[in-house]
Amino acid sequence: MSKWVYSFGKDRNDGDTSMRNLLGGKGSNLAEMAGLGLPVPPGFTITTEVCTEYYNNDQNFSEELAAQVEAALASVEAEMDAKFGDVSNPLLVSVRSGARVSMPGMMDTVLNLGLNDETVKGLEEQSGDARFAWDSYRRFIQMYGDVVLGIDHHEFEDVIDRYKRDADVRQDTDITADGWKEIVGEYKKVVEQEIGKPFPHDPQEQLWGAISAVFKSWMVPRAITYRKIHEIPGDWGTAVNVQSMVFGNMGEDCATGVAFTRDPSNGENYFYGEYLINAQGEDVVAGIRTPQSLTKKGREMEGSNMPSMEEAMPGVFKQLDDVRLKLEKHYKDVQDLEFTVQKDKLFMLQTRSGKRTAKAALKIAVDMVEEGLITQEEALLRVDPQALDQLLHPTLDPDASKDILTKGLPASPGAASGKVVFTSEEAETQAGAGENVILCRQETSPEDIAGMHAAAGILTSRGGMTSHAAVVARGMGTCCVAGAGELHIDVKSKMIRVGEREIKEGDILTLDGSTGEVMSGPVDTIQPELSGEFGILMAWADERRRMKVRTNAETPLDAKTAREFGAEGIGLCRTEHMFFDPERIQNVREMIFATNEAERRAALDKLLPAQRSDFAGLFEIMSGLPVTVRLLDPPLHEFLPHEQEDIDNFAKIAGIDGEQVRRRLNDLYETNPMLGHRGCRLGITYPEIYEMQARAIFEGALEAAEKTGAPPVPEVMIPLVSARKELDILRGRVEAIAADVFKEKGKDLDYIVGTMIELPRACLTANDIAGSADFFSFGTNDLTQTALGMSRDDAANFLPEYVGKGIYERDPFASLDVEGVGRLIEVAVHGGRQTNVDIKLGICGEHGGDPASIAFCEQVGLDYVSCSPYRVPIARLAAAQAAIREGQAKTVPLDSKAAANG
Amino acid sequence: MSKWVYSFGKDRNDGDTSMRNLLGGKGSNLAEMAGLGLPVPPGFTITTEVCTEYYNNDQNFSEELAAQVEAALASVEAEMDAKFGDVSNPLLVSVRSGARVSMPGMMDTVLNLGLNDETVKGLEEQSGDARFAWDSYRRFIQMYGDVVLGIDHHEFEDVIDRYKRDADVRQDTDITADGWKEIVGEYKKVVEQEIGKPFPHDPQEQLWGAISAVFKSWMVPRAITYRKIHEIPGDWGTAVNVQSMVFGNMGEDCATGVAFTRDPSNGENYFYGEYLINAQGEDVVAGIRTPQSLTKKGREMEGSNMPSMEEAMPGVFKQLDDVRLKLEKHYKDVQDLEFTVQKDKLFMLQTRSGKRTAKAALKIAVDMVEEGLITQEEALLRVDPQALDQLLHPTLDPDASKDILTKGLPASPGAASGKVVFTSEEAETQAGAGENVILCRQETSPEDIAGMHAAAGILTSRGGMTSHAAVVARGMGTCCVAGAGELHIDVKSKMIRVGEREIKEGDILTLDGSTGEVMSGPVDTIQPELSGEFGILMAWADERRRMKVRTNAETPLDAKTAREFGAEGIGLCRTEHMFFDPERIQNVREMIFATNEAERRAALDKLLPAQRSDFAGLFEIMSGLPVTVRLLDPPLHEFLPHEQEDIDNFAKIAGIDGEQVRRRLNDLYETNPMLGHRGCRLGITYPEIYEMQARAIFEGALEAAEKTGAPPVPEVMIPLVSARKELDILRGRVEAIAADVFKEKGKDLDYIVGTMIELPRACLTANDIAGSADFFSFGTNDLTQTALGMSRDDAANFLPEYVGKGIYERDPFASLDVEGVGRLIEVAVHGGRQTNVDIKLGICGEHGGDPASIAFCEQVGLDYVSCSPYRVPIARLAAAQAAIREGQAKTVPLDSKAAANG
Repeated sequence: MSKWVYSFGKDRNDGDTSMRNLLGGKGSNLAEMAGLGLPVPPGFTITTEVCTEYYNNDQNFSEELAAQVEAALASVEAEMDAKFGDVSNPLLVSVRSGARVSMPGMMDTVLNLGLNDETVKGLEEQSGDARFAWDSYRRFIQMYGDVVLGIDHHEFEDVIDRYKRDADVRQDTDITADGWKEIVGEYKKVVEQEIGKPFPHDPQEQLWGAISAVFKSWMVPRAITYRKIHEIPGDWGTAVNVQSMVFGNMGEDCATGVAFTRDPSNGENYFYGEYLINAQGEDVVAGIRTPQSLTKKGREMEGSNMPSMEEAMPGVFKQLDDVRLKLEKHYKDVQDLEFTVQKDKLFMLQTRSGKRTAKAALKIAVDMVEEGLITQEEALLRVDPQALDQLLHPTLDPDASKDILTKGLPASPGAASGKVVFTSEEAETQAGAGENVILCRQETSPEDIAGMHAAAGILTSRGGMTSHAAVVARGMGTCCVAGAGELHIDVKSKMIRVGEREIKEGDILTLDGSTGEVMSGPVDTIQPELSGEFGILMAWADERRRMKVRTNAETPLDAKTAREFGAEGIGLCRTEHMFFDPERIQNVREMIFATNEAERRAALDKLLPAQRSDFAGLFEIMSGLPVTVRLLDPPLHEFLPHEQEDIDNFAKIAGIDGEQVRRRLNDLYETNPMLGHRGCRLGITYPEIYEMQARAIFEGALEAAEKTGAPPVPEVMIPLVSARKELDILRGRVEAIAADVFKEKGKDLDYIVGTMIELPRACLTANDIAGSADFFSFGTNDLTQTALGMSRDDAANFLPEYVGKGIYERDPFASLDVEGVGRLIEVAVHGGRQTNVDIKLGICGEHGGDPASIAFCEQVGLDYVSCSPYRVPIARLAAAQAAIREGQAKTVPLDSKAAANG
Repeated sequence: MSKWVYSFGKDRNDGDTSMRNLLGGKGSNLAEMAGLGLPVPPGFTITTEVCTEYYNNDQNFSEELAAQVEAALASVEAEMDAKFGDVSNPLLVSVRSGARVSMPGMMDTVLNLGLNDETVKGLEEQSGDARFAWDSYRRFIQMYGDVVLGIDHHEFEDVIDRYKRDADVRQDTDITADGWKEIVGEYKKVVEQEIGKPFPHDPQEQLWGAISAVFKSWMVPRAITYRKIHEIPGDWGTAVNVQSMVFGNMGEDCATGVAFTRDPSNGENYFYGEYLINAQGEDVVAGIRTPQSLTKKGREMEGSNMPSMEEAMPGVFKQLDDVRLKLEKHYKDVQDLEFTVQKDKLFMLQTRSGKRTAKAALKIAVDMVEEGLITQEEALLRVDPQALDQLLHPTLDPDASKDILTKGLPASPGAASGKVVFTSEEAETQAGAGENVILCRQETSPEDIAGMHAAAGILTSRGGMTSHAAVVARGMGTCCVAGAGELHIDVKSKMIRVGEREIKEGDILTLDGSTGEVMSGPVDTIQPELSGEFGILMAWADERRRMKVRTNAETPLDAKTAREFGAEGIGLCRTEHMFFDPERIQNVREMIFATNEAERRAALDKLLPAQRSDFAGLFEIMSGLPVTVRLLDPPLHEFLPHEQEDIDNFAKIAGIDGEQVRRRLNDLYETNPMLGHRGCRLGITYPEIYEMQARAIFEGALEAAEKTGAPPVPEVMIPLVSARKELDILRGRVEAIAADVFKEKGKDLDYIVGTMIELPRACLTANDIAGSADFFSFGTNDLTQTALGMSRDDAANFLPEYVGKGIYERDPFASLDVEGVGRLIEVAVHGGRQTNVDIKLGICGEHGGDPASIAFCEQVGLDYVSCSPYRVPIARLAAAQAAIREGQAKTVPLDSKAAANG
């Protein structure tokens, strides 16, 4: 017999945190906390395996499960000394979903389950508070109606609004026991109207209805979308947690709150959180009431005069603070807690690893090493390299003039300017069209996930630092200002009103997620200043990683930026980018229009000085470092004019007949230019082009060497090789030019010649090609296109559907397709090293900056990765993590560790 | 010390036919004949290794070689009882090139070497014939001048023409001894004028000059071209044969000739050949005098009244006929012989395997099995599958009206119509532009090779059945009429005159290479009737081959033709070809323009009946056989109108706004359609298209099964799969449709579902894909494009240069790239069989009809090949050869062998 149900609590505790896959994050941590002796209301977890069984079994439950649930419930009843469905002493429970990883897309919670027209009287009796009892009952109907029965929560809110209008009361808190009783009556009518039968009276029926709803919520579209965005497999399933209720809304000695053991936005080591007196947890998370700070420090920082928990409930706060320290020491990580205080007694409802900004992640990781909680290696593995992106992008210029409209909560750091949109759909549409958009909502909900993902910034008028908007935005690394209460966001009329001003859809707003400022119009930005922790962590990463990190750059600005970010050379300089300069393009075109070699050489001679000075500039910046220069790669027609005006203009300057230009354009047209006359095929058919480029490289390198005293190491890269003989021929030419230049200048320098491996045939014949190559650089963009037979330019019509259907787990152009492209790389690495043990191996496609792809590069033993300048730090960290995980990390001397720690 | 020189002859004979690689074809066979006791004038062979050494050593010879040549020459002098350079009794020699395979592109022969102003007197004395001696001397100067010194032979011919005009003589034979003496004087002046120094007098200098010229001729452009066409590696080198002279031109008891042991154009077993009395061999080969038939039978067949050798020289003819029988028995193959008769004594100058037409090859192979000379396996290996093409193409309709201009010799069978061109260059240019051309020359020379290769037919006004034109054309399988002496071919004015008529460049001529007829204008053609030998050999092939042979066909005509040629099913039916029918394309376009699934289904419903009846037709023809139907493959925009008129027309009929059509055209545009939204990607995004096609297949199959009683086996092929999940999804749909159709019709049949393996990723993940596939069909066209990153449509700009430079040895679209694409196939075969031992494996790219590629398919163990209908017999033979060579041939029962032999 399988064990489908695991109890947790003081008396009976079956699980622990190691069972996360089986019990979900929430369930396993409840058991772990109970095991630590912390005050956890007893309950039980129905495992994720039941979810899988449920779907395999046409959404039915087994009798076995029913029996195990009954037994677990009995043990909760025993510990709580109450009975589920009992009229005089009813046990009430919450039912919550709980997957391996937190998933806002799913059903969250049903509270107060077990209430009905009879048991509510028991609750009234037990609590001695009729108002509380009927408020609890109406909350239950509303939540159950919403999440289990699928009734729009507005239907219920309308009932309250009508009641308040009729009874002329302002606040929910002004509604009396009789008022809630009347509302409960109306609620039941709403339910019957909506679902065609009465609200379920039987607590068992309520319980199984809620359990089913949790499992069903695993497959609702927004959960599927969330999983897609976060790459969570659909077969993981969710667990269900049934837990005895405790009440934060039983009076002024009750409270509920959420907290982080450290500040999740900047990582500072103080107790960070919010609470509400006399409230249930949903009130904090949903952002319906703006909560108060947990600590005095927090209250002062926010400039609030609402008492903090530290001040209002010092005794319980002390207990909570002890729990905080105990949990952080136990888990060795920042925890995100939920708690409830019932009549001055603390109950822990959840603990989990706290989501944090990249800045916070860095500080926490470094601080914890200094505190002796974790090792440097653990610290390195704690920080998501992808999240560093947040730290590396511009922030607002503090000196720029700003038209500040209002200030909200600094919910997720970073800055963004963009067009105002009001719906998730519009955000997706506009962002899809290349616009930066700011998604403006009163509050966000899981339905908004796709739009939040698409937006450059998120702005809400309600909700706190732990509201849906804030938590999700931080997770995404998207800038967010939350709870900007002065804003009247009118989604229907697509208008934001703030004081006398109006912001319409399409207007530009700027958000500063680190200050909470909301500004009208665009604001200038500046480069981020990286914190000390960034430098420390990067130093640890650099000490450990095996692979070098280079950058893809052809402009001095990019090269400089990359150097500052720690690039150890250039892995890909795309020389054709230098051809598009307006002053040069005429010469490039004349070269293409040359009808014989002599004319072509004449045009190339005009290009030579410009290329030479480009290279000299790059070599100076990269002095002493390797610089891989790829010779001309794209098909020639990419350089030609296409608009009539351009054609005429070019023809006039070049003194060529316009008709001839059009004929040549026609001659150069290719059906599949990606697979056409490009790359080294140009070098073979028009050798003088590569000869000019080689000359520019060597002359430029000598020039730079003279200036800096530290010669660069040019690595001449021949693109699109499919057969060794191509490389033999072109290598010979490059070497001849080098010899000529060195002889002319009376100086020489080290250089190497290699190839871009970007065709399947090159991978398969790499053992042969390596006989003529000093290095291979994997061009995984083109290798993906050819291996998958998929043009990146044309994939938009089907690739999203492919990823949606799980045909490819991830976009293969963003993250390396390990099974296909990866296997080709393995073949090439093996073949290349077999022939030439010293061959240098690197990657220069977009994948060179993707952490998962970098992990693969470590696995196959590449020597370096190369990526765009802003991804260099990400690659440095990802390379270190990969080395640690693969057991390839370099040994760091003890004194170096001590120094870094000190 | 290396042995560089091998003697042959009666007294000393160092070599034999097994040393072909070292001694070349000619040299090794001269030694073999000498070893058999046949009358071979003594001589020696300088090995092919010397050629390599010569090029490695900056075109210099070693002293070692000089010593070995001296020794070998001495031994020739001893056997001949004459001395090289001796004034009174001079030894004269011929110097000939001789590579492993015969190469018309190289220097052929220098005769009479050793003559000078002194030794000519010795020759005069020895022969007692001053006219012969001086004619020999002038021939020597002319040949040496032409082939060693590089002087245009017209310069020498002009001297003779001037002499004849001045002396008022008509024929060369009318020139006296003094006349030749005077001409020799003029020749020496021509030489001195052209090369700036006198003609070499020293026989040793002459000898080494000729040897150098042979080695140099290995690298002349036309030799390189020939090697390229015939795929002969450049590093094989050539040997040099130095042989004592015998004279066919010493009088009326002398003769020279060439012969084949059987008729090389139809394979009949009679002695076939030509001879000239009182002539040197060059006179026969060069076609300067039209030679006489060797046998009485041959003379009668040609309708000639010039006496045959059998009649004119019965004694020597008998000796020659004995040699013929001895050689054929010895070599077990048809031999191509050269002989000279000097004063009634026979000398053999060459034997080699005789080039033959495909028809002859078949007959000879079958006859030799019946004669007990060779086995069936040997017979199968003797016939070049590619050559069968000659037998399978149309011949002239005998009932068609013909405008016969003249008749020449039927030099190479087959028929061709085409535009008249007069130069090799023009032939190449026009053929490159897609024209059929007839190359018209007085006589052809090795310089014409490239043009002959490009031409559809070859016509000459001079030369016989063994002239350059005839031999080369037969080798190429190109139709040729030679020696049509009534034609006045004027290359300069680009005009042919025949009687009163004039044929200009660009006019259409038709040649019948089997009758020698030359016709004005195009002539209707008919299908070939295959000989009985064809059927016998094919039966032997079918008994032995392991792989099945299918055809690529979608029309009933193609399917029927292929069945007649022995196809065992259809390996590739490209359903989209059925979409282009004018009546259907409107519906196809409406399907593409549908804005939702319902509209799309409506358009597809209109297409269904047509597709169903197409399939039913094919299934009937292939009753009981497997038929692989590939679902829609190309990108949708291939079906759309592009011309303004078509667009307007379509829009009008469909009732769609023209602007909307243009927008949709624009939406569907792809940068690289080959890598775009096509193949199963269409099936994934528009499932209803494949559903319609699957329905048409199953309904059509049931319909055909009912009619024929032998149900076909539909093999539904999903194209362009890159990941297993694509196949999982689409296979599921196909199976669902099959189940529906079978239920609706109350009948069912066997079918299988598989995929085209045409992307590198599919090969690499074949083990996974095979879990969902009943068969793999290798689509090597697209696999070549993606593996090499080379678009077939765009490769013309560089691929010829690539093949020319040897980057790829052969066009990878014509013959499978074994190192790259082949390796991918191996990976896929291995992976596929690992997962699914019963998986059916085939190939359906163009390579399925290429013998070299078929050999590869046998090596990797494919189950079948599929090719275009006309290549089916080629594939059957190639598959048998591959099976024999790989030791995979099926065992043939003895009685079957006997029956076939009987």
